Amino acid sequence: MKPMNVGLLGIGTVGAGTFTVLSRNAEEISRRAGRPIRIVAVAEKDVARANEITQGTCRVVDDAFAVVSDPEVDIVIELIGGCGVAKELVLKAIANGKHVVTANKALLAMHGNEIFAEAQKQGVMVAFEAAVAGGVPIIKAVREGLSANRIEWIAGIINGTTNFILSEMRDKGLSFDTVLKEAQRLGYAEADPTFDIEGVDAAHKITILSAIAFGIPMQFDKAYIEGISQLNAKDIKYAEQLGYRIKLLGITRRTPAGVELRVHPTLIPAKRLIANVEGAMNAVVVQGDAVGATLYYGKGAGAEPTASAVIADLIDVTRMHTADPEHRVPHLAFQPDQLVDLPILPIAEVQTCFYLRLRVHDEPGVLADITRVLADEQISIDALIQKEPGDGEDETDLILLTHLTLEKRVNAAIARLEKLSVVVGKVTRIRMEELGK
Amino acid sequence: MKPMNVGLLGIGTVGAGTFTVLSRNAEEISRRAGRPIRIVAVAEKDVARANEITQGTCRVVDDAFAVVSDPEVDIVIELIGGCGVAKELVLKAIANGKHVVTANKALLAMHGNEIFAEAQKQGVMVAFEAAVAGGVPIIKAVREGLSANRIEWIAGIINGTTNFILSEMRDKGLSFDTVLKEAQRLGYAEADPTFDIEGVDAAHKITILSAIAFGIPMQFDKAYIEGISQLNAKDIKYAEQLGYRIKLLGITRRTPAGVELRVHPTLIPAKRLIANVEGAMNAVVVQGDAVGATLYYGKGAGAEPTASAVIADLIDVTRMHTADPEHRVPHLAFQPDQLVDLPILPIAEVQTCFYLRLRVHDEPGVLADITRVLADEQISIDALIQKEPGDGEDETDLILLTHLTLEKRVNAAIARLEKLSVVVGKVTRIRMEELGK
Repeated sequence: MKPMNVGLLGIGTVGAGTFTVLSRNAEEISRRAGRPIRIVAVAEKDVARANEITQGTCRVVDDAFAVVSDPEVDIVIELIGGCGVAKELVLKAIANGKHVVTANKALLAMHGNEIFAEAQKQGVMVAFEAAVAGGVPIIKAVREGLSANRIEWIAGIINGTTNFILSEMRDKGLSFDTVLKEAQRLGYAEADPTFDIEGVDAAHKITILSAIAFGIPMQFDKAYIEGISQLNAKDIKYAEQLGYRIKLLGITRRTPAGVELRVHPTLIPAKRLIANVEGAMNAVVVQGDAVGATLYYGKGAGAEPTASAVIADLIDVTRMHTADPEHRVPHLAFQPDQLVDLPILPIAEVQTCFYLRLRVHDEPGVLADITRVLADEQISIDALIQKEPGDGEDETDLILLTHLTLEKRVNAAIARLEKLSVVVGKVTRIRMEELGK
Repeated sequence: MKPMNVGLLGIGTVGAGTFTVLSRNAEEISRRAGRPIRIVAVAEKDVARANEITQGTCRVVDDAFAVVSDPEVDIVIELIGGCGVAKELVLKAIANGKHVVTANKALLAMHGNEIFAEAQKQGVMVAFEAAVAGGVPIIKAVREGLSANRIEWIAGIINGTTNFILSEMRDKGLSFDTVLKEAQRLGYAEADPTFDIEGVDAAHKITILSAIAFGIPMQFDKAYIEGISQLNAKDIKYAEQLGYRIKLLGITRRTPAGVELRVHPTLIPAKRLIANVEGAMNAVVVQGDAVGATLYYGKGAGAEPTASAVIADLIDVTRMHTADPEHRVPHLAFQPDQLVDLPILPIAEVQTCFYLRLRVHDEPGVLADITRVLADEQISIDALIQKEPGDGEDETDLILLTHLTLEKRVNAAIARLEKLSVVVGKVTRIRMEELGK
């Protein structure tokens, strides 16, 4: 099957991430898309950097206009950013009949109406999942997943820098200025952080979400924008005492009088899931009339999370480009002739951590007997709590948390533990998962 | 534009929800899909009920086989459930060249391989977003949104009944049996709750997710399944003391030795977002190699949330069915000629609640002066806290939370408050949003 040929404009952080992920996962991506997707040309001012990353696997040029006019290129990825040359290049690519994938929220929020009109005229696709909330597929959720709903409102933590700063201010009781400096040192904030901290970046993103939620043109110039640079640590503390957290939210809401489109620090009840989104993470809540509230959470920035969205768009465009039955979205995500028969592991072979509760006699040597059995079965103990027996009781609960171990080892250990004279009745066993770091 | 004609098999809870949402949101759905989607035939044993719901807007028959053979029908929605007649009907519909939308997780987990092979042969689509996590578009996220990733694992709270029971057991310290009875009374658990509480329903769903995550056939018969009926309230309490919550998780993970596929009660760290998913809500975490962890949260059951997923599938099939450029997924969700020009509200006209912090002199009459101004501007107060002044200080912080009010009223009030002799300096104002009930 003929590969889909991609021209990449800009190989900075996200461009390099895109190149890396596309190479590393080439086989799975091809199994999903129905054909290989390969970068054939990269345009980058820093040619040496581009050559170092691409290692001769594709052409490297310093003239992006050559790539958008290259007859070999089917899809152009625009990762230059801003509204200057990026706009020219995107329009030129469209005029040349190329599909475009972009992460450029500023460009879409400010010139999206013109760009989409041109794309429509030329019959090409402009895909932009990476423009909002990085790797979280929120554009697809709103545009396709929730398409049955009359969407009522969207509220999102869609700028990681400011969420990191607010989390640190609350956590450590520090001032905005102190935390900003720390964020810059850690790379969470740019040297000139204005676009992030003053809410402009979030406003670009909520403008895009408002358009796809309500079927209205992009209207960034009408957005109300207020950042977090004036926020006082005192208010974060008082809000907390009242049961609220302060987050920088992008909000768009449909009202009888019109559409709200705004970015500002917002108190939200601490019990809401979105109030508990900490650090540089993003989360978006969408309220639909049928589905109610749904929430989408993940990394909103970074090389590979953003690349994840860029490449998902490449696959979408590839699947839709030909749109013959074999290239629609496959039922099981992978093309039907590309399923593999990986074995399903029997549960005995599964590795997890375990919580074990034993009812034991409260007498000397109990722990020695029990830990001996576990050691014999190569099970290592992470934590152990022995409860005080109740008044007049001579039995008590012993709780153990294990490190990662094979289920069959735990089964063997339990069989032996239940035979010990110090153990009363059955051992309770519940599996544990960390689910992240 | 010729409408897409739908035949609905079964008009119980979800079927009625689908009918209702499709009618209520007909205009927006048509603006998104590029053509109307209408139910032309309903098959239902309880013809009287079906007539009452459909009110003569479509044909009602008691023979579902007539609908899957009806030449007028383009898409069949199967909401009968189970693996008996539902399987026959789905295969018959496919053989007749109809696209199929189904919420039937048992059918797909057990007979999906056969059904998808037939669909592939006939060139029709079988869509099943509603089969997992109700209204949460998790199938689309895994199949399309995260398609760049090598998926490492998926862990989900994908059964609302058991999550409700576990939340209540933890919250109220009650036993499983007591809470199950309460759940049955409230309609969160069925009269025969076996499929839910023993984990079978969750196993159907995680089987489907494992197939689309790893590109493997459905292998429900190899899933390890353990429910919550044996769970002791004591272990929930001990887990809490150790910093964990117990949730019934469906887990599938790729390991070098094979694929894990399992459902069981699981301790997870209380600080994870998914550990804080309470009541009948669903949430799924997907770990991809590029994107890291993303989470999807919402209502996993109920008439309209499930209908939301069923109709999203109808729109997907409609958009893909013709697959000419005009019927691909539109850039802005709505067809380009269907955008509307709703006005964006100026921020002064936006209604929210407000947090106000005033620095005030600690003297009699302060509250009277301030509340008078707010009353004059028709701003009603939800809560008010006056801090004690620090030692030797004669000023203090006064914090007010308002009910919903127009921004311009608050601006007017603040202008007046700042002129009061009892108020020192500027008033701090932060907007508040409840974001749900």
